[in-house]
Amino acid sequence: MLALAGYPLGLEFTVLEPAEACSAGHLVSWIQAAYDDPEALSALAESADLITYEFENVPQAAVSLLASRRPLFPPPAALDIAQDRLHEKLFFHSHGVPTSPFAEVNTHAQLVEAVQRLGLPAILKTRRLGYDGKGQVRLNEGADLEAAWHDIGGVPSVLEALVLFEKEVSLLAARGRSGETVYYPLVENVHRKGNLRLTLAPGADVEASLQHSAEAYLARVLEALDYVGVLAVEFFVYKGGLLANEMAPRVHNSGHWTIEGAVTSQFENHLRAICGLPLGSPAPTGYAAMVNLIGELPRASLVLALPGVHLHLYAKAQRVSRKLGHITLVAADAAGRDLQLAHLMKIVHGPS
Amino acid sequence: MLALAGYPLGLEFTVLEPAEACSAGHLVSWIQAAYDDPEALSALAESADLITYEFENVPQAAVSLLASRRPLFPPPAALDIAQDRLHEKLFFHSHGVPTSPFAEVNTHAQLVEAVQRLGLPAILKTRRLGYDGKGQVRLNEGADLEAAWHDIGGVPSVLEALVLFEKEVSLLAARGRSGETVYYPLVENVHRKGNLRLTLAPGADVEASLQHSAEAYLARVLEALDYVGVLAVEFFVYKGGLLANEMAPRVHNSGHWTIEGAVTSQFENHLRAICGLPLGSPAPTGYAAMVNLIGELPRASLVLALPGVHLHLYAKAQRVSRKLGHITLVAADAAGRDLQLAHLMKIVHGPS
Repeated sequence: MLALAGYPLGLEFTVLEPAEACSAGHLVSWIQAAYDDPEALSALAESADLITYEFENVPQAAVSLLASRRPLFPPPAALDIAQDRLHEKLFFHSHGVPTSPFAEVNTHAQLVEAVQRLGLPAILKTRRLGYDGKGQVRLNEGADLEAAWHDIGGVPSVLEALVLFEKEVSLLAARGRSGETVYYPLVENVHRKGNLRLTLAPGADVEASLQHSAEAYLARVLEALDYVGVLAVEFFVYKGGLLANEMAPRVHNSGHWTIEGAVTSQFENHLRAICGLPLGSPAPTGYAAMVNLIGELPRASLVLALPGVHLHLYAKAQRVSRKLGHITLVAADAAGRDLQLAHLMKIVHGPS
Repeated sequence: MLALAGYPLGLEFTVLEPAEACSAGHLVSWIQAAYDDPEALSALAESADLITYEFENVPQAAVSLLASRRPLFPPPAALDIAQDRLHEKLFFHSHGVPTSPFAEVNTHAQLVEAVQRLGLPAILKTRRLGYDGKGQVRLNEGADLEAAWHDIGGVPSVLEALVLFEKEVSLLAARGRSGETVYYPLVENVHRKGNLRLTLAPGADVEASLQHSAEAYLARVLEALDYVGVLAVEFFVYKGGLLANEMAPRVHNSGHWTIEGAVTSQFENHLRAICGLPLGSPAPTGYAAMVNLIGELPRASLVLALPGVHLHLYAKAQRVSRKLGHITLVAADAAGRDLQLAHLMKIVHGPS
């Protein structure tokens, strides 16, 4: 989606992707190699004027090497923080961005102590390589902490109190090289089995005060990191306020609706930002919903028969729990969106 | 732009393009060969489930060969008509679509006779291979007809009476394999030196009766040809009615605004149509203007600083009179569009 947004701006793309298949393989120059392959990293640096990433789990060593050769955005420090749940929470706290209560857990004994302090239910998450609900164990009342510590692999982790949040929202910002910053409207996200299923943009009944809070929080994060590019921060709405859950220093699934639903997509704004170009308006063009296609695909002819609907397939082989594409619909008002979304959900998931 | 619209639909592209450079070369499988190269045509047919074209001057023999191997849309008959100005005008007439007065001219004597009948000023145009103002000679009062006949190369031509039209407009339609048809709003086009410079979409002060007339005319053309894909017809607005100027059986420059300015772009609707998928809404999302970038490019940083503006570069080397890209702006109302357009024109063409 970055490449599709970048060609009209006159950009060219080389992608380093270790997987057997690369969903952008048809439309970019593709280097198939491991993220830590020195020759591949060198070839990538050689081919590019500047470098970006759209996946959190790129090894820091690779990023450092590339950043020593070419301008690299978002800044490596942002990736460093996002790769470690503990660092992320400490970073939020040090910049006055509230989170749910948490505790560092490096041993079984620390887990027991953390549970005593935070109470249950709670979620034990590995500090590193967490992605779409992987590396997490939910602890309910009376949970077997020894088993949980075993399940998580006994690796450095964080225990998070489970707050009974009202909804999950996220804010996307784009910040240019000059510091110019734009904020998209807060969107509402619905997750299932650790995967994002649905985004409503703008979110339903999101008060203006929440938008202001979220922008103020992101402004601190962006400035602290001298950030360049698109940043997404997921929040819980809890007791009328926001608790930061995690940040993604990249274009984000909860911003896919912007392709048709905003004046400027997150992909175009990410590219404008890292290229030092002026940013485009993040204003929504209507009321959008984005539905992820996970594990299997609906019939295109049924989906495209709905008004205001756009299909985005990622050219990936079908696999359980894999994001294979998404659908965006845009309506003139919230009621129209909800009506269309109900039709769409029947097509995507079958009659409920 | 077709490829960029098609990847999200899960399509793949192979392009036959004889030129040294192919602006889609980075993002498609490119066969570089002449349009009449039998091996290349065979390779193209072999690689594809279906075939389309986006250039009028593909040789009929190539199209016939491809159509014998694979489904090919729009139908070859449409291309046949569009390649010959005389056939085109006779076709319009036979389906009740008015044109300006015209006469067939195959000899100098016929030219003299045609001028006597139609009067001057008039335009002498070659029947074949006319494109963006090439192959045309304007005849004013007292013109030297012998010189004009020489200038046009003495080839089969058409003399057209020059009508003092109020404006030029065009209508784009998309028709699916099932006959489902959608019409975009009539747009207003401004040409200079035979090149399209500017499209306003919707056109300024275009009356609903003109939209109805234009749709009725296209409906006849589409049905007569059992057309599949996007069709553009250019009209002159003259004495409150429409005179058909020419048709283009393909996605059209005067529809480039639809990428950001309509719910579904002409490119996506062309692909949906030829693939047998339901068509998307052609409704405009606001008031758009499309400005062609001809011969030279403005500074991207100036263009992108304007609100609601999107840049489309075609990855083509600069050359006098060559279309190198276009810019689309979308505003909430016509006044906003006109204001933004004035700013944009200063950036593109310098202060007037």
